[in-house]
Amino acid sequence: MIAEIITIGDELLIGQVVDTNSAFIASRLNDAGIHVHQITSVSDKREHIIEALRNAAQKADIILMTGGLGPTNDDITKLTLCEYFNVGLRFDAEAYKDVEYVFKIRGREVTEVNRRQADLPENCTALPNKNGTAPGMWFDVDGKIYISMPGVPYEMKALMEDEVIPKLQKQFTLPVIVHKNVLTVGIGESMLAEKIADWENSLAQVGIKLAYLPSIGMVRLRLSTRGADRSILEKTVQDKINVLKDLVGEYIYGYDNETLEEIVGKLLKENKQTISLAESCTGGYISHLITAVAGSSDYYKGSVIAYSYEIKTLELGVDETVLNSRGAVSQEVVEQMASAVRKKFNTDYSIAVSGIAGPGGGTPEKPVGMVWIAIATSEKVFSKKCQFANNRLRNIQMTANTALNLLRKEILMSLK
Amino acid sequence: MIAEIITIGDELLIGQVVDTNSAFIASRLNDAGIHVHQITSVSDKREHIIEALRNAAQKADIILMTGGLGPTNDDITKLTLCEYFNVGLRFDAEAYKDVEYVFKIRGREVTEVNRRQADLPENCTALPNKNGTAPGMWFDVDGKIYISMPGVPYEMKALMEDEVIPKLQKQFTLPVIVHKNVLTVGIGESMLAEKIADWENSLAQVGIKLAYLPSIGMVRLRLSTRGADRSILEKTVQDKINVLKDLVGEYIYGYDNETLEEIVGKLLKENKQTISLAESCTGGYISHLITAVAGSSDYYKGSVIAYSYEIKTLELGVDETVLNSRGAVSQEVVEQMASAVRKKFNTDYSIAVSGIAGPGGGTPEKPVGMVWIAIATSEKVFSKKCQFANNRLRNIQMTANTALNLLRKEILMSLK
Repeated sequence: MIAEIITIGDELLIGQVVDTNSAFIASRLNDAGIHVHQITSVSDKREHIIEALRNAAQKADIILMTGGLGPTNDDITKLTLCEYFNVGLRFDAEAYKDVEYVFKIRGREVTEVNRRQADLPENCTALPNKNGTAPGMWFDVDGKIYISMPGVPYEMKALMEDEVIPKLQKQFTLPVIVHKNVLTVGIGESMLAEKIADWENSLAQVGIKLAYLPSIGMVRLRLSTRGADRSILEKTVQDKINVLKDLVGEYIYGYDNETLEEIVGKLLKENKQTISLAESCTGGYISHLITAVAGSSDYYKGSVIAYSYEIKTLELGVDETVLNSRGAVSQEVVEQMASAVRKKFNTDYSIAVSGIAGPGGGTPEKPVGMVWIAIATSEKVFSKKCQFANNRLRNIQMTANTALNLLRKEILMSLK
Repeated sequence: MIAEIITIGDELLIGQVVDTNSAFIASRLNDAGIHVHQITSVSDKREHIIEALRNAAQKADIILMTGGLGPTNDDITKLTLCEYFNVGLRFDAEAYKDVEYVFKIRGREVTEVNRRQADLPENCTALPNKNGTAPGMWFDVDGKIYISMPGVPYEMKALMEDEVIPKLQKQFTLPVIVHKNVLTVGIGESMLAEKIADWENSLAQVGIKLAYLPSIGMVRLRLSTRGADRSILEKTVQDKINVLKDLVGEYIYGYDNETLEEIVGKLLKENKQTISLAESCTGGYISHLITAVAGSSDYYKGSVIAYSYEIKTLELGVDETVLNSRGAVSQEVVEQMASAVRKKFNTDYSIAVSGIAGPGGGTPEKPVGMVWIAIATSEKVFSKKCQFANNRLRNIQMTANTALNLLRKEILMSLK
């Protein structure tokens, strides 16, 4: 079963609004075993919408549209659909009840402009929209399904989940699609590709497709397969992942939508352990990632952000002689920072970082992108020197990911 | 001049990744006076990419693509372009130097897989990519321009700004478009619209279009006009902005691409003043924003992130009796935090925040989204209670914007 998505709106084409609707619709269709062939964003012009519909109908069995259903004159999707199907409008009493309901809970009278929201193309089935005045519309024409939904994301989402997906599942016998994401950190895309080349080549035989999705300091591997039996597909994918673990297990930190900070948080929580941080070049970013996770107060106590020399000595007791002789970006200083904050905040672990985020502040011996990261535990303190690149924000993000991963590995080691 | 955008990648069609690249490219083209006719997302399949190119070339003078340029086997854009243009690959020595450079600063050897990143279609001009190994590619064929860029957003953005837009401006005579953004904070979109209704109505007479671009706690007003003479257009826009300042000047914090943290940083730097922070519910996010600005070490000394009660008393000397009687989210506690960190870190100003970011931890008296923000100076400490909503990350961002704006206003007041 093949679908295409058409998003309608001038605001998309001038870049004023990011089209988040398409990704939502695509992921729900994909979960239901419907393949999305193409996503097209077009303007609020009738000839452009009609052309997009004609093109989509050449390939797709199901065509989903969003946008252009508002009550004002610039919204022309409904009339354009009438033209496309060569039908007129009819008043839909059921749809009008929904319009009345929405106005009632907003404590307003239905205006004439809004009454017209219940005028629908003759050949459509209305899909009730509990969150707005424009009903969704379902057309079944020449064996193809056309679905029109409002562009307001939360109205569209409710329609997709409550109406569109259940109706599609009822109408078609859909295949099962299984995706699994393997999340890696600390290895580049090309190095990873070399290490797993044979494994990658073996996937096609069992009908698995692989994609590399790199982000900052991380690579996500997505395995996808389709068939009829979910449990068989899941086992096929899991068997391959088990082999992958033997090859590059040290770089795998999680699966699917997990984040590194969630994984670290989960480990700390399970072991009833706590953490504190002493951040210099990351300026609070690692603490922010940790505390962006709901429930982080169970394991995170606090941090010192020691940007200036003064705060490093004053708050963390870093030895002034060492600071002056070795510099703030040095193994000695970062290890002192880690030990100090851990003791002071009385936590099981601590992370400390000190580096040159750039663009200024680099020297030949300590270029921009050089960062020291230390981890302290009750038994030891150790550190790692990293050399990142020139972009300030990226250096901060790379440092955060590397530091969280170092801590993750240390916690796992301690559990062995 | 008409453009189309094609984004390439299976991850877009399964909804795993939201296509943010298109909106960025569209807005930059729009700023340069180039009309975007359509945006199309297609899979990593050669026949699909070729079909999308053929369709786009029927309408557009300029076709921009992102994605599919990685070094791995699932990235096929380059070979597909060779097929589309009926050319072979050539080794590009200049592009290879860039690959070597990127690897050098990462301290790694160039692998064979990466060497191939410098094999480019014979008929293209390479656009240097300083942030990655895949160069952009520029094709000038039969009077149409085709541009291929990597899908990694920060690589694409740098290429658009440093290479693509300047080259397009050189090649074509584009209309002059003047945009000016007025940045407001602390007032909602509809309230702002009411206050400036008459002013907004006066814009059409002088050929200015207005757009409201709301983000978290902020509204950006974009004024756009087009014509032939830049200086006349700029004066027309500036005259209108001067009137706007009289109407809503208190909410305006900056213009165009400035951020609130940059504005605050600039003010502190100009006045040779310093800042420190005591963060609770924001968990380091405000410090991160401040330190994301290059050169922030001139005015930012450091922070205490006091997430637990223990750290609030231990590090900031918050009175335990007050903490227990009034709770951490209270005027007394947040003002004590602000005063303590300012004295301890010896800075001119300090910000302290304490609140309930959610989703847990709310009570009937102190619901999720309640936040206290305090500012301390050498002369006083004052605070403000805010009630935000239910989303954790949004509450953190709203708190940060509100706190930075309070500080901005306080600094401006002190200068009067």
